Amino acid sequence: MTQKNDTAIRPTRAENYPEWYQQVIRASDMAELSPVRGCMVIKPWGYALWENMVRALDDMFKATGVRNAYFPLFIPISFLEKEAEHVEGFAKECAVVTHHKLEKDENNRLVPAGKLNEPLIVRPTSETIIGDAFARWIKSYRDLPMLLNQWANVVRWEMRTRIFLRTSEFLWQEGHTVHATKQEAIDRTYMMLNVYKRMAEEYLAIPVITGEKSVAEKFPGAEITTCIEAMMQDKKALQAGTSHFLGQNFARASGIRFQSAMETEEYGWTTSWGVSTRMIGGLIMTHSDDNGIVLPPRVASAHVVLLPILKKKETNDSVMAYTQAIAGRLRQQNYHGTPLRVEIDDRNIGGTRNWDWIKKGVPLRVEIGPKDMDADSVFVSRRDRERKDRFSIQKDEFIGKITEILDEIQSGLYEKALCFLKENTRDIDDPDEFNAFFSPKNPEEPEIHGGFARSHWCGRAECEKAVKERLNVTIRCIPFDRKEQSGACIQCGEESQGRVVFAKAY
Amino acid sequence: MTQKNDTAIRPTRAENYPEWYQQVIRASDMAELSPVRGCMVIKPWGYALWENMVRALDDMFKATGVRNAYFPLFIPISFLEKEAEHVEGFAKECAVVTHHKLEKDENNRLVPAGKLNEPLIVRPTSETIIGDAFARWIKSYRDLPMLLNQWANVVRWEMRTRIFLRTSEFLWQEGHTVHATKQEAIDRTYMMLNVYKRMAEEYLAIPVITGEKSVAEKFPGAEITTCIEAMMQDKKALQAGTSHFLGQNFARASGIRFQSAMETEEYGWTTSWGVSTRMIGGLIMTHSDDNGIVLPPRVASAHVVLLPILKKKETNDSVMAYTQAIAGRLRQQNYHGTPLRVEIDDRNIGGTRNWDWIKKGVPLRVEIGPKDMDADSVFVSRRDRERKDRFSIQKDEFIGKITEILDEIQSGLYEKALCFLKENTRDIDDPDEFNAFFSPKNPEEPEIHGGFARSHWCGRAECEKAVKERLNVTIRCIPFDRKEQSGACIQCGEESQGRVVFAKAY
Ligand SMILES: [Zn+2]
Ligand SMILES: [Zn+2]
Repeated sequence: MTQKNDTAIRPTRAENYPEWYQQVIRASDMAELSPVRGCMVIKPWGYALWENMVRALDDMFKATGVRNAYFPLFIPISFLEKEAEHVEGFAKECAVVTHHKLEKDENNRLVPAGKLNEPLIVRPTSETIIGDAFARWIKSYRDLPMLLNQWANVVRWEMRTRIFLRTSEFLWQEGHTVHATKQEAIDRTYMMLNVYKRMAEEYLAIPVITGEKSVAEKFPGAEITTCIEAMMQDKKALQAGTSHFLGQNFARASGIRFQSAMETEEYGWTTSWGVSTRMIGGLIMTHSDDNGIVLPPRVASAHVVLLPILKKKETNDSVMAYTQAIAGRLRQQNYHGTPLRVEIDDRNIGGTRNWDWIKKGVPLRVEIGPKDMDADSVFVSRRDRERKDRFSIQKDEFIGKITEILDEIQSGLYEKALCFLKENTRDIDDPDEFNAFFSPKNPEEPEIHGGFARSHWCGRAECEKAVKERLNVTIRCIPFDRKEQSGACIQCGEESQGRVVFAKAY
Repeated sequence: MTQKNDTAIRPTRAENYPEWYQQVIRASDMAELSPVRGCMVIKPWGYALWENMVRALDDMFKATGVRNAYFPLFIPISFLEKEAEHVEGFAKECAVVTHHKLEKDENNRLVPAGKLNEPLIVRPTSETIIGDAFARWIKSYRDLPMLLNQWANVVRWEMRTRIFLRTSEFLWQEGHTVHATKQEAIDRTYMMLNVYKRMAEEYLAIPVITGEKSVAEKFPGAEITTCIEAMMQDKKALQAGTSHFLGQNFARASGIRFQSAMETEEYGWTTSWGVSTRMIGGLIMTHSDDNGIVLPPRVASAHVVLLPILKKKETNDSVMAYTQAIAGRLRQQNYHGTPLRVEIDDRNIGGTRNWDWIKKGVPLRVEIGPKDMDADSVFVSRRDRERKDRFSIQKDEFIGKITEILDEIQSGLYEKALCFLKENTRDIDDPDEFNAFFSPKNPEEPEIHGGFARSHWCGRAECEKAVKERLNVTIRCIPFDRKEQSGACIQCGEESQGRVVFAKAY
């Protein structure tokens, strides 16, 4: 058997990356597309991952003083119309509710009835409806800052769906804040971006670059959009989170006014920031391999699966009891503030069982047979190592060291992804090199190519547009750490003050 | 000042209960109606309560082996049509999505565009869409039981809205399970009802009666609907949670089949069960008084508020530091598995501040002035006692005893509600007495009257309907603990095997 045939996922990443992505998700049992166009079903293994991400983010939000609230799913069209850029950004892709009941027609088929006076749209984002509430709630500078977050589903109609990455309905959080001063709002914008960076790096083991979006790429209605951008294994960029400084645009549109300490009437300064189930897609494309998903321990749906080997009637009961006892002790272990999440799979289905858990990406698999039990040991495999790289370890030692092993896996995943990011990020000054960098050798069936090009840009939207039209490459961000450095725009050759990050993107 | 004028909420419960309910919520800052018809905004103080309820329920669900998942917001009309009773039950009140974008018309107004081939409804409940997934996922008895839960928003169009109790959009959880045998599904139905009973009694301090719904009151498509019913302070019943045994109805409608251990092809046996933000309405109407909300500690948005008295420049800093130190120590205390939730309100606004927290229903208010600091003490008020019934206590003693005090408040609220339920529950055999029990003395402006009448019923739908039409009284449930006892139907006088619980209801 060749190495090539020895992978659980076909095609491999190198063979067909987009198809590999679909197959990896299917094999992991995390989620699937539903019969409702563009909507997904998040299955328990995927939803548990999301729950862990939510818990971590929510704790970080609350530590900065943010509180959760809930606003209506529906937004009157008139609200959307309040902010000009915003309506342009979202009107093209929203679900519109026009009726409030169903009735049977002459053929006994259900048809919409009870037409609404004003149609409602299903929220694509909640700036306008939350702005309306803020306008009612905020009277004085004493009511500020207002720091709210909402966990919710949103809908942006999509014709071409990719699970987790682009679906008509997705789950997310949207934070919305109002401040008395411009500076405080800007500070909050960066503070929340930093929470996202921590989430990506410390929990998801995804290294990110942080920066500001160009005018063409910013959120409709925002003054500044900041973002975290990650590199997937096909060297494309994924925007994994954004934090927007909205200036006074939404405050003016919604009438969010307050009386200042000087007793003057002023508009509030607002921010909004969000991450979504899209982050799961980023996690999958960062760490997974040709055998399936690889989950970072800090957010993994489970940390460890115990696989009792139940092949002999005489020993089955005692092996199961031994397994249960280990599970009980493991569940008492604390891993970064939460009890260890332990699964037991007692199916007697041969090698398929082990492969199932490889494909699910559980960090540790522990086989437990009669011999292990007799030796008071367990047989451990790590998802970050080769499948056959397994080791026997005394049970007590394993229980004592498991959190250490998990941390090692976590930091190993991060380091590996960071190397990949660095290897595939280049300063490019020569336009020909830039073109070659972003052009596949085989345009018919493009191989994995490209990466992040740090190149000069004159700042003009025309050049940005020309690059996008020619190569399907966009400015991912103007990185916060960029150096003042004069150079020639990669598109037009004119004066530039520094490099920006170009890449193909999801 | 008379006692009557000394209440924070006007009108009082006795004066106008429905209006009192609205005013209590307004004064607590928990939630409000939004400008979107029938939809509410849950504000941070209300949402924190919901989060605590969610956490408690979610832990209980998971302890029974249930896992969370997420299914689409939208349901194709054809799905709804699959189950005849179900479509009748929900078609009259659903939000219908007919278009997927907005375009500008000749007057530059946004209008729906991109008509869908098949309209979608916003889920009123997810039996049909989850059934569709189960039909794909379940092949064999080895896949069973399937035990899933979803936390989600749902929409049932309402013309007459009452916040938390009846809104077009609300938050809930819906559990859906599939079993290989009828008995196992029935057992699960009762098991989950019991979780709801524990939630109501142990966490919300709401005593409930449990029982089965009559045919007229059961869930559309269910074979058995079980419920928990609570008595509000206006002596009306509130259905606070339901658990349904669906037989094979939805399995047949959705095609949920499995191969049994005998290799026969069989339909699954399904259950569904849900509670919603309606429970918050029940909590409010059970415990609150004429001064506002009263929150049971186990789920309270905060357990204690610290109110530093900052009136003198010389001592303000040290009082604040003393307060912060107390807050820090309190937050390290563990109350039933979670850290104590502590608020600090340092506004210098006189008596309004204390009243604000009374109206919010926080279990403990702690005033801290320079004198308290000098004496190393604090000044404590309990929300379950009279406003002026306050006590000074040594700081260390307070910190050491706070969880005990909270438990005392929790059980006190439960006991009080239980007394009220018992006082207002009566066995009634005489039809005249029954009529009088449910008839206000002043029909123009009905005073609080009625309660739970345990009366005989022959089992016929006509009698149930006649009682409802005459008195607006429904059968809340056939209680599980009812005794076999022969008697005469309260409506028709014919033979009855036992008593059922009649009441006016929300
Ligand atoms: Zn240029
Ligand atoms: Zn009768």
